[in-house]
Amino acid sequence: MSDQPHVLIVGAGAIGSFYGAILKRAGCRVSVVLRSDYDAVKGHGFRFESVLGELSWMPDHIYRDDDVPQETPDYVLLCVKVLPGVDRAALVRPWLGDETVIVLIENGLDIERELAVAFPTHALISCLAFIAVSRIGPGQIHHQAYGQLVMGNFPTGFDAHCQQLAGRLRDGGIEVNETEAVVGERWRKCVWNAPFNPLSVLADGADTLTILNAPGGEALVRAMMQEVMAVAKADGYPLPAELVDKNIAGTRAMGAYKNSMALDYLHGRPIELDAILGNAVAIAERLAVPVPHLNTVLTALRIRQQ
Amino acid sequence: MSDQPHVLIVGAGAIGSFYGAILKRAGCRVSVVLRSDYDAVKGHGFRFESVLGELSWMPDHIYRDDDVPQETPDYVLLCVKVLPGVDRAALVRPWLGDETVIVLIENGLDIERELAVAFPTHALISCLAFIAVSRIGPGQIHHQAYGQLVMGNFPTGFDAHCQQLAGRLRDGGIEVNETEAVVGERWRKCVWNAPFNPLSVLADGADTLTILNAPGGEALVRAMMQEVMAVAKADGYPLPAELVDKNIAGTRAMGAYKNSMALDYLHGRPIELDAILGNAVAIAERLAVPVPHLNTVLTALRIRQQ
Repeated sequence: MSDQPHVLIVGAGAIGSFYGAILKRAGCRVSVVLRSDYDAVKGHGFRFESVLGELSWMPDHIYRDDDVPQETPDYVLLCVKVLPGVDRAALVRPWLGDETVIVLIENGLDIERELAVAFPTHALISCLAFIAVSRIGPGQIHHQAYGQLVMGNFPTGFDAHCQQLAGRLRDGGIEVNETEAVVGERWRKCVWNAPFNPLSVLADGADTLTILNAPGGEALVRAMMQEVMAVAKADGYPLPAELVDKNIAGTRAMGAYKNSMALDYLHGRPIELDAILGNAVAIAERLAVPVPHLNTVLTALRIRQQ
Repeated sequence: MSDQPHVLIVGAGAIGSFYGAILKRAGCRVSVVLRSDYDAVKGHGFRFESVLGELSWMPDHIYRDDDVPQETPDYVLLCVKVLPGVDRAALVRPWLGDETVIVLIENGLDIERELAVAFPTHALISCLAFIAVSRIGPGQIHHQAYGQLVMGNFPTGFDAHCQQLAGRLRDGGIEVNETEAVVGERWRKCVWNAPFNPLSVLADGADTLTILNAPGGEALVRAMMQEVMAVAKADGYPLPAELVDKNIAGTRAMGAYKNSMALDYLHGRPIELDAILGNAVAIAERLAVPVPHLNTVLTALRIRQQ
């Protein structure tokens, strides 16, 4: 492991360029692969407005999709949205050396398997990001709040690569929570995401409090959360029973909030329906756990997507 | 019973003025209560384009809400949409004589009780309309297809008033199917309406085939239909098991179709959510029949309505 690891970010949108900024600040060499923002970033790097202070940065290399890498990265960070038709293995493949570690900073459940199957000999790190950050123009990012990561190897463990990467992220000012069971953490986040994200889209972008305060709204959210907990348990990841109460109380305490899927929907961008809900329902079907509430919401959204 | 009954239509929109035209053609005296279209109808009556030929007609009396009736009607036909905040008993009350029969030509389930409670001494006739008709301008109606009614007394029976009214409607060219159990017929229609109408709204106005052909769409429609059948049975109205298969086959045979709730939604008009779905779910809760699919769709729409 090199002392000053070289990190390459594939999909350097808001989230990718944010963690790139953190790693750059921590002394890593950080390069990016870009499409639409290539010219802007080539010209002035990434410009940031951030609650963490000055985060603007210039990547060491700025590549296009079909470029040849000028050095082999120690870590490839994959930060693209998980959407049907996006072949994430193909996006990563050209940039990998034999020892390159693949790092996912992406939303959703059961999103690692595709990469684990495509690259069985590569170490795979899976991260959940708790962050509010958005792209406001070419190469221009607004970081509103948070930034902590939950990190672990897929499917289990927390190896020396995790140690190194977590150390650098902490050097850059980010809280990293280590886990030996990242899949369980994804289930935990799914308990919140599976109801609130899709319901907000079905309700034309409704915020969390509108969902909870509608007649029957909180009861539906709780029923969906209980279904996710039942699938998680059947999948080998039992979660504490009080998680539902805690999620409801925490959501109410946070105030009206539009989640990322609501924002994608309102801006006309594709939504990560499978990563957030469809994969959970597919696992439920495989394990024969009844999830009528989850399935109804999923199907209603699939009808709308036709 | 007078030989040439006087019918007064409260809520003479597309459906009310259509059946008014039919009864007028059959020799009845027919008056209307109007709001927005008062001046237009006063000037030129109702103008029709219809597959049944010339149906344009001039009412015998044209009233506003606060007028005093110039003769007591034998039948009051109530044809308004069933919406929260619309006090249908108050709409009917000023026009009733002691012997006036109240006739509902309205969509939905459990929509009679409000009138039966308000006017316990009046005969009450409940009709389901199978018709495609729409208002295209003030006093201007386009009748695209169909027109048959299912008719019976609420809660049960088929009395002499039904006989007379059905006879006049048939004289005017309309098929009337008599039933002694109109509530069962409303449950039967609910089996189709409860999935297709609300799902079309959740899916932004999707037609029937889009709903059936989406991944998981037909399975969801079937699950919702089965839930309605279970509630109907618990309510004392068992329906034949093959109704679900027949509904699916019939819907596919009919081709892509946008139902009335989808059209209301697409035109920005309020939707009859309680009459079509909410009342069925309320009865399910009272009878402790689990309806998770119906409840999820209902709640998602209620969140959207906030």
